Amino acid sequence: MIIVLKPNPDKEQLENLKSWFANINLGIHMSEGTQSTIMGIIGDTSVVDIDLIRALDIVEDVKRIQEPFKCANRKFHPPDTVISVGEVKIGGGNFMLIAGPCSVESHEQICSIAASVKQSGANVLRGGAFKPRTSPYAFQGLRGDGITLLLEAKKETGLPIVSEIMELSQLPLFEDVDIIQVGARNMQNFELLKEIGKVKKPVLLKRGLASTIQELLMSAEYLMSGGNEEIILCERGIRTFETATRNTLDLSAIPVIKSLSHLPVVVDPSHSTGSARYVHSMSLAAVAAGADGLIIEVHDNPAAAMCDGPQSITPGAFDKLSSEITRMLSMLREFES
Amino acid sequence: MIIVLKPNPDKEQLENLKSWFANINLGIHMSEGTQSTIMGIIGDTSVVDIDLIRALDIVEDVKRIQEPFKCANRKFHPPDTVISVGEVKIGGGNFMLIAGPCSVESHEQICSIAASVKQSGANVLRGGAFKPRTSPYAFQGLRGDGITLLLEAKKETGLPIVSEIMELSQLPLFEDVDIIQVGARNMQNFELLKEIGKVKKPVLLKRGLASTIQELLMSAEYLMSGGNEEIILCERGIRTFETATRNTLDLSAIPVIKSLSHLPVVVDPSHSTGSARYVHSMSLAAVAAGADGLIIEVHDNPAAAMCDGPQSITPGAFDKLSSEITRMLSMLREFES
Amino acid sequence: MIIVLKPNPDKEQLENLKSWFANINLGIHMSEGTQSTIMGIIGDTSVVDIDLIRALDIVEDVKRIQEPFKCANRKFHPPDTVISVGEVKIGGGNFMLIAGPCSVESHEQICSIAASVKQSGANVLRGGAFKPRTSPYAFQGLRGDGITLLLEAKKETGLPIVSEIMELSQLPLFEDVDIIQVGARNMQNFELLKEIGKVKKPVLLKRGLASTIQELLMSAEYLMSGGNEEIILCERGIRTFETATRNTLDLSAIPVIKSLSHLPVVVDPSHSTGSARYVHSMSLAAVAAGADGLIIEVHDNPAAAMCDGPQSITPGAFDKLSSEITRMLSMLREFES
Amino acid sequence: MIIVLKPNPDKEQLENLKSWFANINLGIHMSEGTQSTIMGIIGDTSVVDIDLIRALDIVEDVKRIQEPFKCANRKFHPPDTVISVGEVKIGGGNFMLIAGPCSVESHEQICSIAASVKQSGANVLRGGAFKPRTSPYAFQGLRGDGITLLLEAKKETGLPIVSEIMELSQLPLFEDVDIIQVGARNMQNFELLKEIGKVKKPVLLKRGLASTIQELLMSAEYLMSGGNEEIILCERGIRTFETATRNTLDLSAIPVIKSLSHLPVVVDPSHSTGSARYVHSMSLAAVAAGADGLIIEVHDNPAAAMCDGPQSITPGAFDKLSSEITRMLSMLREFES
Repeated sequence: MIIVLKPNPDKEQLENLKSWFANINLGIHMSEGTQSTIMGIIGDTSVVDIDLIRALDIVEDVKRIQEPFKCANRKFHPPDTVISVGEVKIGGGNFMLIAGPCSVESHEQICSIAASVKQSGANVLRGGAFKPRTSPYAFQGLRGDGITLLLEAKKETGLPIVSEIMELSQLPLFEDVDIIQVGARNMQNFELLKEIGKVKKPVLLKRGLASTIQELLMSAEYLMSGGNEEIILCERGIRTFETATRNTLDLSAIPVIKSLSHLPVVVDPSHSTGSARYVHSMSLAAVAAGADGLIIEVHDNPAAAMCDGPQSITPGAFDKLSSEITRMLSMLREFES
Repeated sequence: MIIVLKPNPDKEQLENLKSWFANINLGIHMSEGTQSTIMGIIGDTSVVDIDLIRALDIVEDVKRIQEPFKCANRKFHPPDTVISVGEVKIGGGNFMLIAGPCSVESHEQICSIAASVKQSGANVLRGGAFKPRTSPYAFQGLRGDGITLLLEAKKETGLPIVSEIMELSQLPLFEDVDIIQVGARNMQNFELLKEIGKVKKPVLLKRGLASTIQELLMSAEYLMSGGNEEIILCERGIRTFETATRNTLDLSAIPVIKSLSHLPVVVDPSHSTGSARYVHSMSLAAVAAGADGLIIEVHDNPAAAMCDGPQSITPGAFDKLSSEITRMLSMLREFES
Repeated sequence: MIIVLKPNPDKEQLENLKSWFANINLGIHMSEGTQSTIMGIIGDTSVVDIDLIRALDIVEDVKRIQEPFKCANRKFHPPDTVISVGEVKIGGGNFMLIAGPCSVESHEQICSIAASVKQSGANVLRGGAFKPRTSPYAFQGLRGDGITLLLEAKKETGLPIVSEIMELSQLPLFEDVDIIQVGARNMQNFELLKEIGKVKKPVLLKRGLASTIQELLMSAEYLMSGGNEEIILCERGIRTFETATRNTLDLSAIPVIKSLSHLPVVVDPSHSTGSARYVHSMSLAAVAAGADGLIIEVHDNPAAAMCDGPQSITPGAFDKLSSEITRMLSMLREFES
Repeated sequence: MIIVLKPNPDKEQLENLKSWFANINLGIHMSEGTQSTIMGIIGDTSVVDIDLIRALDIVEDVKRIQEPFKCANRKFHPPDTVISVGEVKIGGGNFMLIAGPCSVESHEQICSIAASVKQSGANVLRGGAFKPRTSPYAFQGLRGDGITLLLEAKKETGLPIVSEIMELSQLPLFEDVDIIQVGARNMQNFELLKEIGKVKKPVLLKRGLASTIQELLMSAEYLMSGGNEEIILCERGIRTFETATRNTLDLSAIPVIKSLSHLPVVVDPSHSTGSARYVHSMSLAAVAAGADGLIIEVHDNPAAAMCDGPQSITPGAFDKLSSEITRMLSMLREFES
């Protein structure tokens, strides 16, 4: 951490600041220049609240050198984290292919789609029970009943399941859900993160629409500092000025996250583009970019889906895509060896 | 609502669609062109889920003509909504000046700032008890104790109070809080909105960092369709590529919201700019743009504030600003008459 | 084009509007509703200035159904455009691999890099002579001398060359340059586009930092309506709030452009990410997403490059990447067949 | 400038770097920590190309402390710059009110609007001759003839005129134009900036749609380092995700620019909002925020304007606005005294 002091800083305040850093075992190097004096803070500064420093009268600017996250930081945990969900693994070369409908609609719907995507190669089933919808007049999901139906599909097919939680009070319903999804709109719902941080269960943490990669990692840090280390990050598009796609899928986030963190990254090509016709190419692109997994919406009758139909691909399209993904992964492994 | 059909739409599907609209009492006008056929849907389409229509095989595109919100829509409620908080009013020409520290820190701190801002003309006291912080290692607020201290300041000064709720389970603590604030990160926490929609108490709803004005109004619609009509909207800056200010304060949102909705709008010049030095000019600008209120961070010792010190102005600066606001409001009233 | 009229529009103005459309051979369908009347305009509306319509007193809103570009529109030209540069082709299944240094620095530098990238599989050489730099104090390129050196490298290696033009008066210098690059900052330099539209030479048109895909296609339309149909579009990242990469590479733009237009698309993974370490994965991702080409910065001594060194990869890294691209292209062709 | 070195930097490279700084008379302070070594560079670093430093093998990161602009920097020129255009002044407390049509259409049109806005208090006339339009099919302005008509209006009314240049070759036509406008799309047309930097005439430099405030000041630096110090900066809205207004007017830019630079700032409420109905409130807001001037589109028949009609206000609306601006300016002066 670099602190640029204002010219002629008050000596007492400067001594106070120095003592404060010394008390938390951080070292200090002073560089006195003609126009400004610079303090270099040496040691683990991840827990220093940069805003507090910036507010001091004697401080002109503060710049972080070290990242403000620790548990999620690759520097402190170089090898890839590998997370197991039943017999399925993700990270460290293991690929997770999550598929299923946007919303759970009925026993028949979820079970038939589950059977279909399993046969095509998916190893985790997705399905929305609690649905965050912009309009209060839009379909809000089957809620608790949706979770029940998902569990039935899990029982029938053996596929582990992932579903989105929207509120702390729903947590008991997720006891048998294999992966808890925290949606983009809740990425900075810190109270929710704190509680899920205490649960021993993998979490799929989606990047917020307007969240930087660093903020995504800080939200992972909330979960991890609470004790839950099984965090799967998910890139699902960010909000930009472009309107041709619903959001702008930021595939560069994959190598950026992998350089900063040891956590696995999955990509959601369905919500990011908002359009079934772009799912195929963006899925292959995500795999080529190094994603550890994909989460894809599949519906046997997209036109009749109760939400987000336009972005769901058919089981047939998924089957073709899945086999191409398998071949691409195999080729990428050859590139690395 | 305008529906552009694909060329040669399937007749049965088209008839189904027509019946569906007829069943919910919406009229249809067909315009058949050489390249495409257009359906104009006539009537109250605010409850139609546009994504469902867009997903149909026969549909190429759908465009809304009518806004998707109703309770918050000025078309259905032309006069300004006026909200009363004790003897303080906002909307319809009434100005609400909210001031106070970012975080409640102690009895002495909150009461002395409260007394000071009241004397300077503030009519509502703000203070954070539950603090959403990007880092789990940053100060998280005094939480329940903070609410208690705020209530003490209310008792001492008579000022109504506003504070931010972060989670549904905190709701009982807000029983004596006059205005519940829903923060930017929770603007689309729909479960929270649904519950607060059942409360009979004014809500200060902050615009999300990456939320459009229409989405802000849709979140107000969540609250209002639940029965709570006392919604105060708050513009607090949106996330853009510019880094000279923390966020980009979108003052155009004021006249835009006022043309679309009857709800009052306040502006937060402190969080949007993130810098005390810009609060004065942005406050005056917000007033000139037609804001119904301001929410300003004031701290008697910004350098020692436990969070967001850099954006807090001193009681002295607030006093000067408050008197200028009063004079500007008086001049604006002359302009209108 | 859909025109929503205000309630009770002035009859004379409405008749004028109808006549105006009739005069340019556009058909009209009227849908009169209880709240608003809608005019559907049938025919080729690409040349209608939507702003003129929107400005009319009787008009509440106008929405385009048809895209406002024509020459670049796949609807009017379904097959992929294939562009030849000497013996190299791009589009319709032909891949163009452009490589070279950010700036041309010396005869030795450009010729040795050219020979190296050619050997690795590049089929076009890039090199900046005129450099757009944010600061007037930064290196501005060798300018005319840079073009001369590029031509020497072309002669030595036989590789066609591409270089950026910054100003109309530089056009004569580009007589022997094979592809004229129009940079992101000049994508809406309409006077430049008009003149280059008269030249018979392929143009590499880069997307502006804050330009939508539709605006990129409108700029291609400027070139094409002038008579130059050999336009190669280039996605090179857009400006967003994310700062971990220089810009946000929008790979979804590839399938979006391919659905809207018949023009080939190349991707620039170097400028978009601004970092050599992300070039490899983003190049593979672009290929997987369906790009028709790549433009990659290669420098034999990135640390000594006169500009943009951090984003240049070494000849060795390029060689590995190029062979992987070849294999991926071959696999993608198998997927399609 | 702070340079963070990688662990165990190569000694020879480090010595080379030190010598390089010493040669350009910059001082160095080294802070050696356990994890990284930090070099503080002391002196005028505005001419150091940060990208060159960042590219070095031994460097992990570089952060600027000093702004990279000098001529435009308030630190080196504390008093406000005051620019004279005939008898009209801007800056240092002088307000410039620019008004006129988007496009010059005819002698009668421009002269009657000029006379009208002059009577209402405008002291500079605007009018577009060369019009940057997204579509090649839209009206492109009267070009040279438009300049001629503007000069006629200048002669008739005595008002100085401002008009936009789009291309270097148009420069001779601007000999009698009082202020040359560089539009948003040309803010980083560096070749144009270099040439206009040699002209002795005030320039109105508009901020690019996706340009940061620092980039705007760097473009001013291009002009000023060429010798032209009469630069008027113009905030005209930036591109964001919000679509309710054409762009997002960033009024915070006013106090930010004023803290960083001594140059005057005007605001364009017409292009930024794209809607006549928001011009009034945004104009007053800009004045309250401290703008040194406004540039407002006025048309006597907005519905018949040849471009951008929807954003033009009528002469009557301008007259009311102008008198309110005068009163607000007078009140703001009282606040300051």
